[in-house]
Amino acid sequence: MTEPATALAAETRELVLTRLIDAPPAKVYRAWTEPELLKQWFAPLPYTVPFAELDVRPGGVFHTVIRSPDGADFGGRGVYLDVVPGEKLVFTDVYEPGWHPVEKPFMTAIVTFEDEGGKTRYTARARHFTVEDRLRHEEMGFHEGWGKATDQLEALAKTL
Amino acid sequence: MTEPATALAAETRELVLTRLIDAPPAKVYRAWTEPELLKQWFAPLPYTVPFAELDVRPGGVFHTVIRSPDGADFGGRGVYLDVVPGEKLVFTDVYEPGWHPVEKPFMTAIVTFEDEGGKTRYTARARHFTVEDRLRHEEMGFHEGWGKATDQLEALAKTL
Repeated sequence: MTEPATALAAETRELVLTRLIDAPPAKVYRAWTEPELLKQWFAPLPYTVPFAELDVRPGGVFHTVIRSPDGADFGGRGVYLDVVPGEKLVFTDVYEPGWHPVEKPFMTAIVTFEDEGGKTRYTARARHFTVEDRLRHEEMGFHEGWGKATDQLEALAKTL
Repeated sequence: MTEPATALAAETRELVLTRLIDAPPAKVYRAWTEPELLKQWFAPLPYTVPFAELDVRPGGVFHTVIRSPDGADFGGRGVYLDVVPGEKLVFTDVYEPGWHPVEKPFMTAIVTFEDEGGKTRYTARARHFTVEDRLRHEEMGFHEGWGKATDQLEALAKTL
């Protein structure tokens, strides 16, 4: 088997954001899993989230609509692959609900919430099939977009 | 949303084998989920299966090695996505264990075991990302290979 080579190749196809959030994991996890909370932070303002459906279990739908300042809607739909309540969420656009592969899959997200003295070591990973997809995601503004959204996530979690 | 179009497009990317197997679902399911049993039927003779590791839970590894009559080994590794004991198995080569997307994913398999008067309505679906991949899988001998293996599966399940 070629574990190390695979792992190395995988690294170059991954984008990572990590942050120490000043709220406990349970609250950050709530903000990720309750639709009415997710809608308040998931898109970096002035983008908004008018719709969110989150069926938080393996195979359940993860569906959000992000609205741009000029009113254009961008739907994102996929499924959860793995859920460890309070600790980890894995979801992807590879499948429509019912395990139907889509024609152009893009990414798989892994979000972990670890307790660090009452705060949350928050890590969000976006894994891609190719290096090209990873670069495209960076160019689309992964770091800035997810960074701003994470500011909003932290601000919200502190109020819960 | 474009559900109907998506479903239609998905159909053309799917290969299906269905069969009424003369053994109850519990036995056919055992033959799919116990490595020592799977090794006895999973490759159509004269191909053999010298190795099988089956961690039958979402995210768990599905790993088999198929050996050709002239001794060449073909590894197949992926993960389970969904497991309904006795009823349904979903697994794919899209991910290595740990939710690492591979660079060239090929298929997702959905196998269902339904009771039909003490026999098993057995359905195995192979879903692909593209019509090209589905055609390639057909040309690789999906129907003949899976058909012969299913004969072997039935013969084994009847002895359990």
